[in-house]
Amino acid sequence: MATDVLQRYCEKIKHELFQSVLPFWDRHSVDNEFGGFFACLDVDGDRYDDRKFMWLNGRQIYMYATICGAYTASELSELSTDRLSREKLLKDALNAAKFMYAHGVREGKVFFSLTREGEPYHFERKIFSACFLSLGLGSLGAVLKQDGRIDEGEGLVAKSLLLLKLIIGWSHDPSSLGREVCEGAPKTSPMNVPMILLNILDELQVKGAISVESAMAADIDVKQEEEWCVAEIMKHVRSNEQRVLEVVLADGSLCPGYDGRHMNPGHAIEAGWFILSYAQRTANHELAEVAEKMITWSFEAGWDKDHGGLFYFLDAEGRSPVFLEWDMKLWWPHNEAMIAFAMLYEASCKEEHLQADQ
Amino acid sequence: MATDVLQRYCEKIKHELFQSVLPFWDRHSVDNEFGGFFACLDVDGDRYDDRKFMWLNGRQIYMYATICGAYTASELSELSTDRLSREKLLKDALNAAKFMYAHGVREGKVFFSLTREGEPYHFERKIFSACFLSLGLGSLGAVLKQDGRIDEGEGLVAKSLLLLKLIIGWSHDPSSLGREVCEGAPKTSPMNVPMILLNILDELQVKGAISVESAMAADIDVKQEEEWCVAEIMKHVRSNEQRVLEVVLADGSLCPGYDGRHMNPGHAIEAGWFILSYAQRTANHELAEVAEKMITWSFEAGWDKDHGGLFYFLDAEGRSPVFLEWDMKLWWPHNEAMIAFAMLYEASCKEEHLQADQ
Repeated sequence: MATDVLQRYCEKIKHELFQSVLPFWDRHSVDNEFGGFFACLDVDGDRYDDRKFMWLNGRQIYMYATICGAYTASELSELSTDRLSREKLLKDALNAAKFMYAHGVREGKVFFSLTREGEPYHFERKIFSACFLSLGLGSLGAVLKQDGRIDEGEGLVAKSLLLLKLIIGWSHDPSSLGREVCEGAPKTSPMNVPMILLNILDELQVKGAISVESAMAADIDVKQEEEWCVAEIMKHVRSNEQRVLEVVLADGSLCPGYDGRHMNPGHAIEAGWFILSYAQRTANHELAEVAEKMITWSFEAGWDKDHGGLFYFLDAEGRSPVFLEWDMKLWWPHNEAMIAFAMLYEASCKEEHLQADQ
Repeated sequence: MATDVLQRYCEKIKHELFQSVLPFWDRHSVDNEFGGFFACLDVDGDRYDDRKFMWLNGRQIYMYATICGAYTASELSELSTDRLSREKLLKDALNAAKFMYAHGVREGKVFFSLTREGEPYHFERKIFSACFLSLGLGSLGAVLKQDGRIDEGEGLVAKSLLLLKLIIGWSHDPSSLGREVCEGAPKTSPMNVPMILLNILDELQVKGAISVESAMAADIDVKQEEEWCVAEIMKHVRSNEQRVLEVVLADGSLCPGYDGRHMNPGHAIEAGWFILSYAQRTANHELAEVAEKMITWSFEAGWDKDHGGLFYFLDAEGRSPVFLEWDMKLWWPHNEAMIAFAMLYEASCKEEHLQADQ
């Protein structure tokens, strides 16, 4: 019964992915002239902006690498009824990787967006542009190495590690990003930084891009960083109140004001998934239980009992969140909740997780 | 008939303002210990954050000064059925002005928010915190001078002028705000900068805080700045398409991508009101006609024909705007549209403006 349900979803998702989503992006997002991917596409594929965003390019490179790592050329063309070519996906991903790294990384800075031709357009004093580029380059490098394209693959992995080193430095010392720090602002621990860093370290290892040893050779202590990420995330998990907060003080105590009450159920579920993945890889059963709680508490808190769907933001005390978009239902938290509950069900076979997933 | 309608609205608004809105803020927002106004108040007056924001403090000082400039002590206590004291409003406004200026302005920087005690909390590389503080200080200074408190009043006006000089410098050379400028980003003219500067110059003159002569003594050429503001705003008014754009290139041509198609009907209506006010003060009939078009085009474009209300953002080509909150209906654009149409009706007695107003 449960297997039937999951099998049905799996077929549906595969069909959407290979017959609709990937062919759309393959057809409309590739810049054959300069390299890189466009992301501002209307529903008919029409482009409404030429800019190239680092987040979207990093993630598309990662997506292409993940697909090409999972399927052979003939499997992929069968799955997509000849709509997709593994060779073309890899070529486009590699062009994007080269273009975005060549133009988007300069003097220890990673730009948020570039013009179509590659000139820096916008810079953010945050870690995330570098994170998604590092993840894309490393994942693609691993696939090229699997395919026997050793030099190209190692070149990409080396760039991924360079970025990773930058990211780790910024994560431990956010002032190195050059943000204006006001003396009255409390020293906080935001959850998004350790959460994304943990995910990158996890993915790069799972994909075979890096190992503990190869990272150490690049002066990165993966185990130590993972433990730091987990410890930072755990500061946000409040067992007494059964909730996950987005921002706490650096010492783990509650942050005063509305920042300290800010909850992002989609983020908290995603963080639970990353923690669960790490806990499974390190066979840490206690931590896996915490991950299960993070996911179920946040889903329960975030679900709109009247109309269904996950709220974008909540206030821990039930006050009105300060962001206008707080009660919107976005697609990404729902996707991530589906992934998280599928992982929980796979690990535990608990019926409730399968039900939440549906 | 029209007079009846307007009279009824006027009574309703006065009742709300003096019996409900002002008594609420008078009771709950004042920090008697440190000075300054709290702004994070729940509907029952409960405070959900202690921070002091420059925008909100500047505007509350301005609001108090405007009320105290318009009514005597006995008129105010009659209007509010003894809920409000002119003396207390002025005292609280003055305490806020002293507190926010002493703690929020430092080495040519104006902070966006402070802790309750006055430590800098957040800094934005934008002109607006300084704008609303300058407006508040100048307006309050003018009232104190009217009341015969010459030294106190002149002290505030002098501070307002110091801020105004900073604002003008930043407006002409945004790089002086210290923002990272990427070479691929087009040189743009945003409408919000000249629009707010024009409003401050207008208000400070109308309130009697500054004159062309007194500003010149502080090395500010008011007429030249006003003309610059009007010329900048006019770059955004596209007569052929009958629309007002939020961002154009510095040379007045269309900005490529979604930035260039971004429309904020509430802003455009507000800008029309500021232009109308300037045009009336300078007896510029041609400009007053442009202002009327800015207001009516933007109202027409922004009004939701299906459900009523003004959309927050629109895309000039009818594509989906990139900001999540684009289709929300906020209160401020509606307030500002009411002011703008009331001004248009007052100036023209055209029935259509009265109807739009309702």
